[in-house]
Amino acid sequence: MTKSLLTLNAGSSSLKFALFSAETLAEHGRGEIEHLGAQARLAFRPAQGPAIAHTLSAEEGGDHHAALKTALATIAKATPHLDVAAVGHRIVHGGMQFSKPALIDETVYAALAALEPLAPLHQPHNLAGVRAARALFPGAPQIACFDTAFHRGHDFAADAYGLPRAMYDEGLRRYGFHGLSYEYVSGRLREIAPEIAGGRVVIAHLGNGASMCGLRDGRSVASTMGFSTLDGLMMGTRPGQLDPGALLYLMSAKGYDAASLTDLLYHRCGLAGLSGVSNDWREVEASASPRAVDAVAYFVRRIRVELGGLAAALGGLDALVFTAGIGEHSANLRAAVCIGMEWLGIVLDAAANRANAQRISAPTSRAPVFVIPTDEEARIAELTREVVDASRRS
Amino acid sequence: MTKSLLTLNAGSSSLKFALFSAETLAEHGRGEIEHLGAQARLAFRPAQGPAIAHTLSAEEGGDHHAALKTALATIAKATPHLDVAAVGHRIVHGGMQFSKPALIDETVYAALAALEPLAPLHQPHNLAGVRAARALFPGAPQIACFDTAFHRGHDFAADAYGLPRAMYDEGLRRYGFHGLSYEYVSGRLREIAPEIAGGRVVIAHLGNGASMCGLRDGRSVASTMGFSTLDGLMMGTRPGQLDPGALLYLMSAKGYDAASLTDLLYHRCGLAGLSGVSNDWREVEASASPRAVDAVAYFVRRIRVELGGLAAALGGLDALVFTAGIGEHSANLRAAVCIGMEWLGIVLDAAANRANAQRISAPTSRAPVFVIPTDEEARIAELTREVVDASRRS
Repeated sequence: MTKSLLTLNAGSSSLKFALFSAETLAEHGRGEIEHLGAQARLAFRPAQGPAIAHTLSAEEGGDHHAALKTALATIAKATPHLDVAAVGHRIVHGGMQFSKPALIDETVYAALAALEPLAPLHQPHNLAGVRAARALFPGAPQIACFDTAFHRGHDFAADAYGLPRAMYDEGLRRYGFHGLSYEYVSGRLREIAPEIAGGRVVIAHLGNGASMCGLRDGRSVASTMGFSTLDGLMMGTRPGQLDPGALLYLMSAKGYDAASLTDLLYHRCGLAGLSGVSNDWREVEASASPRAVDAVAYFVRRIRVELGGLAAALGGLDALVFTAGIGEHSANLRAAVCIGMEWLGIVLDAAANRANAQRISAPTSRAPVFVIPTDEEARIAELTREVVDASRRS
Repeated sequence: MTKSLLTLNAGSSSLKFALFSAETLAEHGRGEIEHLGAQARLAFRPAQGPAIAHTLSAEEGGDHHAALKTALATIAKATPHLDVAAVGHRIVHGGMQFSKPALIDETVYAALAALEPLAPLHQPHNLAGVRAARALFPGAPQIACFDTAFHRGHDFAADAYGLPRAMYDEGLRRYGFHGLSYEYVSGRLREIAPEIAGGRVVIAHLGNGASMCGLRDGRSVASTMGFSTLDGLMMGTRPGQLDPGALLYLMSAKGYDAASLTDLLYHRCGLAGLSGVSNDWREVEASASPRAVDAVAYFVRRIRVELGGLAAALGGLDALVFTAGIGEHSANLRAAVCIGMEWLGIVLDAAANRANAQRISAPTSRAPVFVIPTDEEARIAELTREVVDASRRS
């Protein structure tokens, strides 16, 4: 019987899960259940043996609790003598207080629940995952691993908005997200190019959610995401950077209220809204529709402008790293971002880029460019083991 | 009797005015009436003779019409045989259609009035100035000179937001402002450094309102202001860049509505809100309050980040120009913006900067840095004469 660490990443309509050896952190398998509710669909890829994929009944995939039970049954079938020693959760928001992962006791749980207004579309689902895991593993420690923790410790000027100071003091500030991904990729960069990892690095996490992070000496000094997950780069269905006056206009002239604005900004903007084609980059990129071409141009433009802004925050650039679904797989996107960036020291190697190589810059590129696949689950497992070990020692 | 051009710049609580020779564009004088309503105050500096400054009665400064009458009486006293041949108006918003100045006939006036929802805090006052001038000079052509016109013709990607495409098509796009200032400064740069003016230039217009513009070959290709005058840099009382999620939070968790958000964002943010000291840069800069120091750091940070973003939009940087009240007079601000910007080719000459010299960069600076005082009134007069001459010829 091997002790295992289970990682959970509970979104609004999905549950990602993975299993690792508690000793070695070797992966036993991972999977996800998508479209929770009706027509949920499970996929599981064990480390050994055939992948599994099938549609779930309402009983199997109706909510987070049902989905977690189904995920565990799937894991158990592929993993005889399963013994879950601890569960690590991706928690989107750690607010001002959590700058590192935390063992979820009653006090911590209450603190996480109190942060729901800061991330109303994510935090409640994360906590539904915590409750489901507690019910199924009452003896296992539950560990909160935060998307925001990596960005704590920014300078005031990197955390603030031009709002009344009292609002900043109450928590209306830039948090930044995708921290687990940045931690993982930053660690990988240290292995791949230790001579560069201590410098001024920008990591572009480009997936259905997207942000960029400026790192100095492996620590986050700036992020394009701010108070919420709406800001910065354009995303699949979210707008990214938006003039606050646009919201005032939609309210005053078009009758939008908080609920309809929330629906608009989280679900009907971004690649989907601008292209009219899809929220999926691959479909937008492949489309010949003039609106899709425009949407691609805007997506690229925002990445380039934010790259310049992060270089300013860092005082220059020593390396650029692409990660996450789009960043890892779209050679066209990477080429469009990097073209004409010689002024910043970036020159791509077209063949290496097309091949999705690890290093895609030309030898003449002063700032090398990398493609490094991210793995938030692996980082959650690492952090979970650290917290469990630390709590045993104390 | 000399024919004159009158320029008017009507704000929410102020009226700026200037008088130029219609022949030579030589300035006869300029002034402003501030705090329209109660306790309005007039200042006038004729080209020849002593300056005038005094408080006005309610009858003299109660509204735009009264203020314009008072301004004209003041001008007339200093300018015997005044004959106003045309009036040039600063109009904040020209929408999608106006890419150059326009003679205000009934059709144009209606079009300008229809744009009020796009700039509800500025456009109505601009048009109040137009009505007052029409009433007082029924025979003189009235010319609209737009803050937005200089930025028309941007690429789609520089004009768009990540909103549904239909919203862009209806006009929810980046317009950019301070165009009259950029036109003037860009023209001056061409005189001062013709070898550079055709390159990649960033102009930082830093006043109580503040924005930055990226120019290539003298034409605007990007602006930090967008749909409204709220976005981009922090300003005296406006926040600049702000996560749309912050507004959703203020609405959902704090009970804000469109009216209270508008008041917050236009009047209680920016240097005033963040420092708690003043909306006036000079007072914030001079304050030893820790919150003022933080506000200064944030103001500087935003300028630096936007400079990097504009360099990305331009594909590098050939020159940086500071203008407007803060840009022309705060050596400390300019030094703080430029320090550590060697990666972008910028090296200041500390002594030249302290002296507010025209060129404040060191000889080693690959990208020279200039201080060029702006003059929106002079640009309005130029444009007004051009439109009047063109309408005579046609």
